Amino acid sequence: MAKADLIAEPGTHEIIMTRTFNAPRDLLFKAMTDPDLVPQWWGQRANSTTVARLEARDGGSWRFVQNDAHGNEFGFHGVYHSVSLDKIIDTFEWEGLPGHVILETMTLEETENGQTTLTVSSVFQSVVDRDGMLMSGMEGGSNESYDRLDELLEKMYASKA
Amino acid sequence: MAKADLIAEPGTHEIIMTRTFNAPRDLLFKAMTDPDLVPQWWGQRANSTTVARLEARDGGSWRFVQNDAHGNEFGFHGVYHSVSLDKIIDTFEWEGLPGHVILETMTLEETENGQTTLTVSSVFQSVVDRDGMLMSGMEGGSNESYDRLDELLEKMYASKA
Repeated sequence: MAKADLIAEPGTHEIIMTRTFNAPRDLLFKAMTDPDLVPQWWGQRANSTTVARLEARDGGSWRFVQNDAHGNEFGFHGVYHSVSLDKIIDTFEWEGLPGHVILETMTLEETENGQTTLTVSSVFQSVVDRDGMLMSGMEGGSNESYDRLDELLEKMYASKA
Repeated sequence: MAKADLIAEPGTHEIIMTRTFNAPRDLLFKAMTDPDLVPQWWGQRANSTTVARLEARDGGSWRFVQNDAHGNEFGFHGVYHSVSLDKIIDTFEWEGLPGHVILETMTLEETENGQTTLTVSSVFQSVVDRDGMLMSGMEGGSNESYDRLDELLEKMYASKA
């Protein structure tokens, strides 16, 4: 499976992850914004994700809940600053660490061969928060999520063709 | 008049401004979230500010419009990630530079002598965006705005006493 490129310059507030998916942009956008599709790829395979709210529009908000096999529940939520086919800008908060918020800028760029490159820039409120996220194993977690997204996009593409 | 402290470490995404107001926290919060009060202090004295939308609640959104003496109009908007008396977290976009968004964390901390310290952390999507804001004269603009806020709070306090 592909791995996302990760850039995190020392001493800055930002993490940039980039990954190319073998699907046109409209499919990737749909997988990222459709409440029925998000649970099929968001988060680790071992957990289940429920979409409590997903209003993919300027000024909308979102909340996803993850449940693991041990009975733990993890909530995540935020607001959409702006949503368009080529760029989604939102905020992100893990409810286990309230008050610590991330600004995410997700850019969807379709290339000539029908693939789409997703670039996710996350800026944190502090370098400490950013470094904490790096140490939490987010890279492995994101790649697992993106692997699942890859598989979902393949299914979506096949059923569309 | 007091001046805000400004911290902007080289090469980072952040600007932190701190200023202490001679007013209790609930008055400062009201001045920052009441659609009738914001036009009385937000922005430069030479311009007039209209509040098109100000929904100071989790998931609410806001839009302010400034008009100058030369007939120019400047729009600003964003979404509120979370709003409480001691902390407001929102996004900020100047419509003259669309797609460039700032995550603002405004902390209101009341001190023992009835003053309130406002700390505004702004994190930008890039260091280039952050440096651009620093060079735009935002420090002078913010201080003018905070001077006006100081004056408004004095009036609010006097009418309350």
